[in-house]
Amino acid sequence: MFKQLGLIGCGLMGGSFALALKRAGLVGQVVGYSPSPTTLAKARQIGAIDMAADSALLAVAGSDIVLLAVPVAATEATLEAIHQGVTADTLVMDVGSTKRDVADAARRALGERLGSFVPAHPIAGKESAGIDHADAQLYSGCRVVLTPLPETRPEQLSKATDVWSALGCRVTQMSAEEHDAAFAAVSHLPHLLAFAYYASIAQQTAGAQFLALAGPGFRDFTRIAAADPVMWRDVLISNREEILQQSQRFRAQLDAFEQLMQTTEPKALESLIREASASRSSWKMNSSPVGGER
Amino acid sequence: MFKQLGLIGCGLMGGSFALALKRAGLVGQVVGYSPSPTTLAKARQIGAIDMAADSALLAVAGSDIVLLAVPVAATEATLEAIHQGVTADTLVMDVGSTKRDVADAARRALGERLGSFVPAHPIAGKESAGIDHADAQLYSGCRVVLTPLPETRPEQLSKATDVWSALGCRVTQMSAEEHDAAFAAVSHLPHLLAFAYYASIAQQTAGAQFLALAGPGFRDFTRIAAADPVMWRDVLISNREEILQQSQRFRAQLDAFEQLMQTTEPKALESLIREASASRSSWKMNSSPVGGER
Repeated sequence: MFKQLGLIGCGLMGGSFALALKRAGLVGQVVGYSPSPTTLAKARQIGAIDMAADSALLAVAGSDIVLLAVPVAATEATLEAIHQGVTADTLVMDVGSTKRDVADAARRALGERLGSFVPAHPIAGKESAGIDHADAQLYSGCRVVLTPLPETRPEQLSKATDVWSALGCRVTQMSAEEHDAAFAAVSHLPHLLAFAYYASIAQQTAGAQFLALAGPGFRDFTRIAAADPVMWRDVLISNREEILQQSQRFRAQLDAFEQLMQTTEPKALESLIREASASRSSWKMNSSPVGGER
Repeated sequence: MFKQLGLIGCGLMGGSFALALKRAGLVGQVVGYSPSPTTLAKARQIGAIDMAADSALLAVAGSDIVLLAVPVAATEATLEAIHQGVTADTLVMDVGSTKRDVADAARRALGERLGSFVPAHPIAGKESAGIDHADAQLYSGCRVVLTPLPETRPEQLSKATDVWSALGCRVTQMSAEEHDAAFAAVSHLPHLLAFAYYASIAQQTAGAQFLALAGPGFRDFTRIAAADPVMWRDVLISNREEILQQSQRFRAQLDAFEQLMQTTEPKALESLIREASASRSSWKMNSSPVGGER
């Protein structure tokens, strides 16, 4: 049970975390900060925050748990803005989709308070960003990856594990490097491909006619192309080496498929498809434990 | 109201059509044919067909409506096998995802009965093929594209339009060429990309670990990678020129995105993503009419 949550950034991720913490009875009160007065007002109105602070630092003062829910590129500036309010006992977490850059930012910004910081990545989200879509259930049943630094205090890591578990999440631990390699493969590259694919259709002369004919397969394949542009700009740039490496592997596979289409080798093409199809059919989300799972 | 449906192929698409037609009270009885005795028995058991025929021709004899629900590559052989049972009054349709090859096959196989044939493509399906997944609701609310040949009799075209409409479908008419160009863009290419992407992840040494971490975005993006290998082998080969052309457009977009990631031009990258994201957010399935819609 925490006394006070200092929430920096009151959008979908932050607002949902505050709502979930309150509903679970895990926090006394929530003090929120957002650069947007409209967002702050809305966050109060829906009960995500109890008080609006005038600065990030003021939201952190007196808080024993702090969540940064800001675009990844804003992490360093935000940590700098709050570091004077962080004590050795404060648990500070973020929700960023990339973790090496967050670790680097924390090293530069937090100084002697680095041990309070537990980098976190909850694998949850919606296509629609913003406090209007905040949902106390957003994190329920999802996986949360924690990427503690060598300097992270075990006590804070344990508190972080407990709070996400209490919200119904499966908590996994790994290094920031392992995290960024894995998510380049299963999250960042799919977003890049979905953006590029959607753009390639929409920009054609007949694009509008094509889009009018698209069905359920297209709908699901392109759902992530509606994701937040600022967040994904930051992810694609900050983790670009891993993403570009995954993209090379993907292009090699695409070449292999296209070659078989062109040389009209039905058997070989069918077996490539069959392998992917069988593997995807047996895949289930959150079905298998991951090394370091708590 | 039809006297008898001759159903050639009793899988997901065929079984669902028979169930829907029966539930709507649009058919007296259904005679089914499948090369698999197990499938035929199951189709009878769930009430999709009333009688099992020993050949495709026997299923067509005495039927005033015939549905071919076989892999596209089997269309020509199937039409050849049944053409002696087709009369000038029979309505013959298929459900194939490509239409130029189906038109060519019909020209070669149907002879003087070509006028009875109305090529059809219902934009519906599931990841799971087979009669076990047949569903009377499968076609409800979906779009059906009809690509009549110049030889198709107006009377048969009108009957085809009526029967799909009666099942709750939106019926659209276009040429086979227009159809294949549009579906290369919004259906065939996404399948190719999903197969290639899934294969590129699964084949990595760390693939299993990566897959264990994948979340809802990955789930939706790769859903179509579980599609039927035989059907998609046929589609990718039969419509390869259009698909490869769409793939070139996609690759050009992917290059553009990756270039901006590498030169670290956040503003330009953000605006590319923003355009795709905004367009995808406002896209709705079946929202807009298509030229030729009835």
